[in-house]
Amino acid sequence: MNNRIDRVIEKMRERGLSQMIVSDINSICYLTDIKIYPGERLYALLLKKDGKHTFFFNRLFGRHTDFDVVWYNDGEDIISEINNRIDPDLPLGIDKEWPAKFLIPLLERNSKIKVLLASDCIDDVRAIKDAREIELMRNASRINDEVITRAMAYVRTGMTEKQVAAFVDREYLKLGADGNSFGTDVSFGANAADPHHATSDYTLHEGEMVLIDMGCIRKGYCSDMTRTFFNKSVSEEQEKVYYIVKKANEYAESLIRPGVKLSDLDKAARGIISDAGYGEYFTHRLGHFIGRTVHEQGDVSSFNDNVCVQGMIFSIEPGIYLPGKFGVRIEDLVLVTEDGCEVLNHVSKDLKII
Amino acid sequence: MNNRIDRVIEKMRERGLSQMIVSDINSICYLTDIKIYPGERLYALLLKKDGKHTFFFNRLFGRHTDFDVVWYNDGEDIISEINNRIDPDLPLGIDKEWPAKFLIPLLERNSKIKVLLASDCIDDVRAIKDAREIELMRNASRINDEVITRAMAYVRTGMTEKQVAAFVDREYLKLGADGNSFGTDVSFGANAADPHHATSDYTLHEGEMVLIDMGCIRKGYCSDMTRTFFNKSVSEEQEKVYYIVKKANEYAESLIRPGVKLSDLDKAARGIISDAGYGEYFTHRLGHFIGRTVHEQGDVSSFNDNVCVQGMIFSIEPGIYLPGKFGVRIEDLVLVTEDGCEVLNHVSKDLKII
Repeated sequence: MNNRIDRVIEKMRERGLSQMIVSDINSICYLTDIKIYPGERLYALLLKKDGKHTFFFNRLFGRHTDFDVVWYNDGEDIISEINNRIDPDLPLGIDKEWPAKFLIPLLERNSKIKVLLASDCIDDVRAIKDAREIELMRNASRINDEVITRAMAYVRTGMTEKQVAAFVDREYLKLGADGNSFGTDVSFGANAADPHHATSDYTLHEGEMVLIDMGCIRKGYCSDMTRTFFNKSVSEEQEKVYYIVKKANEYAESLIRPGVKLSDLDKAARGIISDAGYGEYFTHRLGHFIGRTVHEQGDVSSFNDNVCVQGMIFSIEPGIYLPGKFGVRIEDLVLVTEDGCEVLNHVSKDLKII
Repeated sequence: MNNRIDRVIEKMRERGLSQMIVSDINSICYLTDIKIYPGERLYALLLKKDGKHTFFFNRLFGRHTDFDVVWYNDGEDIISEINNRIDPDLPLGIDKEWPAKFLIPLLERNSKIKVLLASDCIDDVRAIKDAREIELMRNASRINDEVITRAMAYVRTGMTEKQVAAFVDREYLKLGADGNSFGTDVSFGANAADPHHATSDYTLHEGEMVLIDMGCIRKGYCSDMTRTFFNKSVSEEQEKVYYIVKKANEYAESLIRPGVKLSDLDKAARGIISDAGYGEYFTHRLGHFIGRTVHEQGDVSSFNDNVCVQGMIFSIEPGIYLPGKFGVRIEDLVLVTEDGCEVLNHVSKDLKII
């Protein structure tokens, strides 16, 4: 654990920061193994370059720790307590998720202080998974593989999207997951043409396709996968689009190795889809980082020129969405290895008709 | 809908504000009927006193609306677009939940601007439910009443807390709820002595008590209720504590009417518990506001001297938590009426042994 904090302090040093407020519960847990759900109340860890870190705990939620702790009760002025522990002459790093209800009162008490977004000091460390984290990520994806396999055997004409999602959620619990990493997204037919369709009471018809985007959480780590398959039959256009998306997925995965730019992965997948004439229908980034939350900082998009580093885990999820008709997305999680990548999902990507 | 915005603008006027950024998805939905889940991306509504409101939509999530819209793509500088639409010489209201990742870049582009927390302009309006909202809140609580009744019939010695929670969650869906308003909290025996216990694999023994804190969401509105009951037998101390908590709950509810201070409700319930010698074991506030989220702004605590207003809905949930032994909490939702209150939960609060 302390090694993680050391690496964050090193990143702070590189940015000239000697103090930083961390409020993301997942970042705090990553650094200290303490996980608290404070609801609307303030909960923070003040990191200092000199190692004198301080927790701010509401008495309703706090717990014993070897860190210094400032305890407060509802109604007490915890913002002034934080302010008293900050060096007003030095810049203060701020967690990207810290809400205005805490940041603005701090700025009101200390109008001179220079605040800087500094979460990347932690996010860059969190992005590189260690051996234990990798094993947990593999386990969460193993459950995901098993549940999508069961779901493919379960889906039938006449079922609703919600019914299929409820099945997925139940199987997760049966297989030992602690819950979902996000709401299971089931889309039938033309609904799948909206990549942000909300799972509905729409029923499956013969000849429609089924898209399931799903993930579970187990022991604090997330899985996330999408498979698209076909009910009873597949049209010529569906088949064509399916194989383009599959090729984009597999081509991007084949390029992954340390040193390759994340933006180049996006470009490669987008190139396959554009060359096939469907460029305008691939409307989102190729992937996102994942770990303790389903979307961690960092993405696989044209805007991210950072390079792959061994230990990174992210999604590769090209899609083609044809409004009013259907949509296809194929998503795996991948781990960057010493000389390539390990795909964490093992469910076949061959075209499947149920 | 427009009437809601008018009431918010009136509150802004009272505070001398002519512009405000709203980012809470529930507040935006309350004002415009548009609900978008933007994930980590920026999504905001800029309210202006003169009625020239503007939405900021990422192209991935936005939708058609009669409001003015600024569309942006990933990688585009939407913060500057917002900044261009703000009057730099006037204070800017900020949503209390707006994260630092958007607020700090805005302040960097516009170091002169005065920002103020201004969510109460909306939260004060949201706190007073209209007739349609009240009916939806009644419906969500009706489902909650039915599911706790079924849960009481279902619980048996040897079941785990997680098993009971999963039953509750399944019954919600069967009865037409859209999901949970928060993670169902089931605590057996000494686990209930921690009001923030996480539902676990602990199994129920004879003579232990069962505490279930649960809520569902239906058509966008939440329920929330707690009942405590006993498995096979009740000890003398458990019975004594149960009746003290019940008396505190019922006494507070009997005092509710327009004009009564929320802090006085907390004081009344706390008085009952303190007079019985358990004051130090009632460790949290008496209640919280609720509506589109399970915790809306506003609480029933010693720190809130605001008065009850017809149409407010909040929880009344006194508890006594005896470390290492057991805990009792009894929670209802209540609606402030013209001359008293309507308790939205109808499940008996008589001591129940299953």
